[in-house]
Amino acid sequence: MTTQRKAPDAARRNEAARRAILTAALDLAGEVGYARLSIEAIATRAGAGKQTIYRWWPSKGAVLFDALLMLSEGQDDQPADLPDTGDLEADLKTVLRATVDELNDPRYSEPMRALAIEILLDPALAADFAERLDEPMRELKRRRLRRAQQAGDLGPGVDLDVAVDLLWGPLKNRWLHREGPLTTEFADTVVETALNGLRPGQSSSSTSR
Amino acid sequence: MTTQRKAPDAARRNEAARRAILTAALDLAGEVGYARLSIEAIATRAGAGKQTIYRWWPSKGAVLFDALLMLSEGQDDQPADLPDTGDLEADLKTVLRATVDELNDPRYSEPMRALAIEILLDPALAADFAERLDEPMRELKRRRLRRAQQAGDLGPGVDLDVAVDLLWGPLKNRWLHREGPLTTEFADTVVETALNGLRPGQSSSSTSR
Repeated sequence: MTTQRKAPDAARRNEAARRAILTAALDLAGEVGYARLSIEAIATRAGAGKQTIYRWWPSKGAVLFDALLMLSEGQDDQPADLPDTGDLEADLKTVLRATVDELNDPRYSEPMRALAIEILLDPALAADFAERLDEPMRELKRRRLRRAQQAGDLGPGVDLDVAVDLLWGPLKNRWLHREGPLTTEFADTVVETALNGLRPGQSSSSTSR
Repeated sequence: MTTQRKAPDAARRNEAARRAILTAALDLAGEVGYARLSIEAIATRAGAGKQTIYRWWPSKGAVLFDALLMLSEGQDDQPADLPDTGDLEADLKTVLRATVDELNDPRYSEPMRALAIEILLDPALAADFAERLDEPMRELKRRRLRRAQQAGDLGPGVDLDVAVDLLWGPLKNRWLHREGPLTTEFADTVVETALNGLRPGQSSSSTSR
């Protein structure tokens, strides 16, 4: 936005500084943890001025949030939409297994966990996060489930937000509250149980485990 | 434990001081919020010495945790077991509706939220919480579901821990992350959707909504 009024070289320099700051924030969050992460240390590592950081971001939580957005943008294989092969169960397992891998990767998981906690403490950051990441992601999930509903693979009366909660909530909870190991088996069981329900004998694909 | 070696009067005085400190912690957490809660303010409000508090509890999070345990012990109608009328769906709705009421009560909800966040930051408090509150509660839930499984109301292959996650997780998430209003309607929908599953036409009690 603001770069439009600047000369191309200045815009390039700003973008390079921005990336250096975000990379430094990610690296340091992984090395020292979020609690001991400081704007001063980020500035030193990035070779930038503290004032530059304070001018661009209101808090260290905001720096980390942008750093995580940069990380996910950097993945070229990041899907713009959830997979739709026509097999809902298989597609959901693919997505949840990818989430398991991501949450087991400390470079992503530790800053993300710090951010999740910071969001609970900072309403402004929470609103920004909801608008820029959480709500768009939830809409992608709802969209895939809506297509499944239209195809007759999801009950016509199913509340799509509750469906998102049932499918993605258990993984998020287990990760954030460290309630147990995050495995592909857990992801698969959540998908099967949410689709088939807890009642007995509701689906031929419900196997005894 | 330690009171056994003390004279009865001293034990009674200790118990009175303990209750005054926990009540002061609850009241102050509600009034000023957890972030601005201090051991000093708790001591002043309770008419106790700061050293007494530091001797009995390692952190303000630990004080608040005991205060919340005292609050739930004080409810005489607190069930030792989850209801079992033989109607699993009705029983689960009863339990989740009671949780909705509890989480909408600021006297309970605000300190509990502060504690939930503190637990994410403090592994020792997390371990204490898991042992004294979270795991016993989860066992009560598993026990009710195990009886339902034995009665044939729950699929024989259902993983009871995943079932607990599907039934109780959405409410906890929506509350902790302030994702939406906590209503009895939401609680009912979660119970129905988890029991019936997301697939179409799996149960006669699945109504279009």
